[in-house]
Amino acid sequence: MKSQDQAKWDELMARWQEIYDLDGVSALLNWDQSTYMPSGGGAVRARQSALIGRLAHERRTDPAIGRLLDELDAAGVGREAESVEAAMLRQLRRSYEHSTRIPAAFAAEFVEHLSNSYSVWAEARPRNDFAAVRPYLHKTLAMSRQLAEFFPGHAHPADPLIDEVDQGMTVAKIQPLFEALRRALAVWVAALAQKPAVDSHFLQRHYPKAQQQAFGEQVATAFGYDFTRGRQDETHHPFMTKFGPGDARITTRFYENDLVNALFSTMHETGHALYEMGIDEAYASSVLDTGTSAGVHESQSRLWENLVGRSRPFWEHSYPALQAVFPEQLADVDLDSFYRAINRVQPSLIRVDADEVTYNLHVIVRFGLELDLLEGKLSVEELPEAWHARYQENLGVHASDDRDGVMQDVHWFSGPIGGSFQGYTLGNIMASQFYAAAVAAQPQIEAEIAQGSFGTLHGWLRENLYRHGARYTPDELLLRVTGSELTIQPYLAYLQRKYSQLYGTLPALP
Amino acid sequence: MKSQDQAKWDELMARWQEIYDLDGVSALLNWDQSTYMPSGGGAVRARQSALIGRLAHERRTDPAIGRLLDELDAAGVGREAESVEAAMLRQLRRSYEHSTRIPAAFAAEFVEHLSNSYSVWAEARPRNDFAAVRPYLHKTLAMSRQLAEFFPGHAHPADPLIDEVDQGMTVAKIQPLFEALRRALAVWVAALAQKPAVDSHFLQRHYPKAQQQAFGEQVATAFGYDFTRGRQDETHHPFMTKFGPGDARITTRFYENDLVNALFSTMHETGHALYEMGIDEAYASSVLDTGTSAGVHESQSRLWENLVGRSRPFWEHSYPALQAVFPEQLADVDLDSFYRAINRVQPSLIRVDADEVTYNLHVIVRFGLELDLLEGKLSVEELPEAWHARYQENLGVHASDDRDGVMQDVHWFSGPIGGSFQGYTLGNIMASQFYAAAVAAQPQIEAEIAQGSFGTLHGWLRENLYRHGARYTPDELLLRVTGSELTIQPYLAYLQRKYSQLYGTLPALP
Repeated sequence: MKSQDQAKWDELMARWQEIYDLDGVSALLNWDQSTYMPSGGGAVRARQSALIGRLAHERRTDPAIGRLLDELDAAGVGREAESVEAAMLRQLRRSYEHSTRIPAAFAAEFVEHLSNSYSVWAEARPRNDFAAVRPYLHKTLAMSRQLAEFFPGHAHPADPLIDEVDQGMTVAKIQPLFEALRRALAVWVAALAQKPAVDSHFLQRHYPKAQQQAFGEQVATAFGYDFTRGRQDETHHPFMTKFGPGDARITTRFYENDLVNALFSTMHETGHALYEMGIDEAYASSVLDTGTSAGVHESQSRLWENLVGRSRPFWEHSYPALQAVFPEQLADVDLDSFYRAINRVQPSLIRVDADEVTYNLHVIVRFGLELDLLEGKLSVEELPEAWHARYQENLGVHASDDRDGVMQDVHWFSGPIGGSFQGYTLGNIMASQFYAAAVAAQPQIEAEIAQGSFGTLHGWLRENLYRHGARYTPDELLLRVTGSELTIQPYLAYLQRKYSQLYGTLPALP
Repeated sequence: MKSQDQAKWDELMARWQEIYDLDGVSALLNWDQSTYMPSGGGAVRARQSALIGRLAHERRTDPAIGRLLDELDAAGVGREAESVEAAMLRQLRRSYEHSTRIPAAFAAEFVEHLSNSYSVWAEARPRNDFAAVRPYLHKTLAMSRQLAEFFPGHAHPADPLIDEVDQGMTVAKIQPLFEALRRALAVWVAALAQKPAVDSHFLQRHYPKAQQQAFGEQVATAFGYDFTRGRQDETHHPFMTKFGPGDARITTRFYENDLVNALFSTMHETGHALYEMGIDEAYASSVLDTGTSAGVHESQSRLWENLVGRSRPFWEHSYPALQAVFPEQLADVDLDSFYRAINRVQPSLIRVDADEVTYNLHVIVRFGLELDLLEGKLSVEELPEAWHARYQENLGVHASDDRDGVMQDVHWFSGPIGGSFQGYTLGNIMASQFYAAAVAAQPQIEAEIAQGSFGTLHGWLRENLYRHGARYTPDELLLRVTGSELTIQPYLAYLQRKYSQLYGTLPALP
């Protein structure tokens, strides 16, 4: 790079680093609010978060960034499409164009509206008061449509909202995949409903928190989570958050009458954190120092939680250790009974508690409702009943209220309608693709897992996936790592194999 | 106020609120760093803290603040000297003039230097390596002198540094008070050295952390600390910090072989927090929403820690409760033995562990060394030996190294030389003045303390002292609350009464 180009490059990097650090400060403000903040701190915390968010937004949309990007483009910097420089400029351009398309006044109004909407939802949900949130949902829907309009040329109003978190994805690409998945799952859910019920009552015995926590942290460490570069704390709704390359924290919550809820949540957030912790140090604090999309992120949380954590090889090694921690509670439970219990399939009302087979039906219902709302096929007034009808149709269950119906998830009450849910199922699909590729490359992985050893799997994922951060788009990364585009076949094959072994042969798909 | 003046006033308040919120964010970054941050987070945290500090500094020194202050002055706003408006303008003017006198480049260099100095000290202290910190101390001294030069017209180079934290105080005012105090304490320390040693070995039995913590939090709550507006966490060097009017947190550390270290630290930080929590809601997030000086702040931490927490009435009620928490450990210890043990006078090397009689000698030694360094009477090279010599002279003890000598406290390695220590002794002096005024106004206070009830004392302090925040200067506040200027007589009377009762009559002062 010529010296005047280098100076511009350095200025661009320095400007981004300031944005990165402000985002890290925002993340700390949120983490503290969700873990330790006393209730009296809420009012000032909202102001602090809004202030830091505004300072970051001002810097993201600073015309100097657009000017530097143009000048570096003109000078030919990043002209090698495969170079790190090109990837950085591409991601910086994407961020700049996205944030400058949204008028600052709109952005500020939306943030404030969503903050109020969240507060009203948090209060209204326990008392099942949909009427209280309805006007907020109306405005959220109107503003989500408006948001989409700032990105002209889209085929569907959800597309810009989806692209924001799952770059390159569109309704046209997602819908056929989700529909094929839905049909397959419907067949299996119907078949599994005919099988004898699995006993899992022993998971609800008394399991003291301290032991749950110690066991969970052992598992996280074994997976590869580095407690000198992170920590685990308690919260209501578990999440992973990152303040910088050396500080990626996970959170969970403990129920003493539930052995596995916290444990699988810990594995899930560990998966997210392994991705963030594994990014190449050369990208530290740059625009590439983050996972590349919601779906790829979720593929890693689900891979560690489900493909590893709910697998029989994992428990072959770990179940004796768990029994040693809870000798009385698990004295009468053998490995097979335990393994069946943690994989019990049971259509239910709550997404986050769903098993692997029914989980995606929860997501697909929500994704469909989002599209219908944005297209105007469905009104906010009709939403609660539409929710119940689709749950009845897809899962055969019917919530007795809106609390466990349309008000169940925080997403529509704290973010736009559109783009909120597809990442979960994209993640499940990709998890199987990535895992199959890993095992194909390193066939000893499953035997190692059965020995309590995860180094080969973790190392392969770090080398092939994690270290790239946001260098590649989700499509590029998937192709690069698995040699394939997005496809549900490995996922269906995984489910059929696993649940046939558990429940007896599942029917072939039509 | 006329409407155009009101608009200016509102703008000034809004500008200050942003500074206040940035300071709150900085405080959270520090709190997290001192309590929960994993070691890997350090590098980015330093950058985040520097960034938020710079953003706050830019806003503090924004010429718009100077212009608004001038225009409001010219319009006669705040002309009633006793009004809240006048107090706010006075404090805003003080902040603006102070921060604009220091060139931004100097401020940035000093912050960076002190950050490096701190890191070197933290590493060098455990290995007793004064040579490693010496060059940093040289630069700190040179820059502290330079800092003083930005405030021309001072009688002593320490005066601007003292005034920064203890407004209105000067070397000329402090020195005679400290000298009189030193002479009095020397007489008593010599007399007490002749008394039989007090047995306190039972304080070093095994006291599990969880029970210590629960008892400490009970005491904090009884004093009036509101756990919905704060919390207690663990750290190495306890402190109180405030992120906003509803979030004032305390920290402590637990030693399982020490019954009272954490407990008195909790009482101490609770005192600081009661001050901050008690500020009038009308001043929330304004320039008045803070204690008025280091000394007045320390007066409240020491009042609750010593005048209440180390008093016999307090333990008449609380000792049975403590014995109930630690029945085995304290089975053979009666109230009088316990009370004598926690008030044992013993010249020692470490300031923060010192008893009430010797504590101020530690401070006075440091204060004298600071003055001599700034005046050039003492060089950094001579400092370690001067430390030992003055400890020998004043306390009759001699550290075997510099770790417990000149490298003992963080202050000179993380802040300027000058202004760092006088607040501790000013606080002890004022604590007795404030407490005597409270008891004079509400004579039932001591009887109530003996019942475990602190509401009258807390209410009186809140009404007369806490609620004013920074509305009055320390001098004004002291005069207003006690009817007196700064005087050591109540403090000496308190010590003489208490320690005569404990050790037999102390000699009259010369």
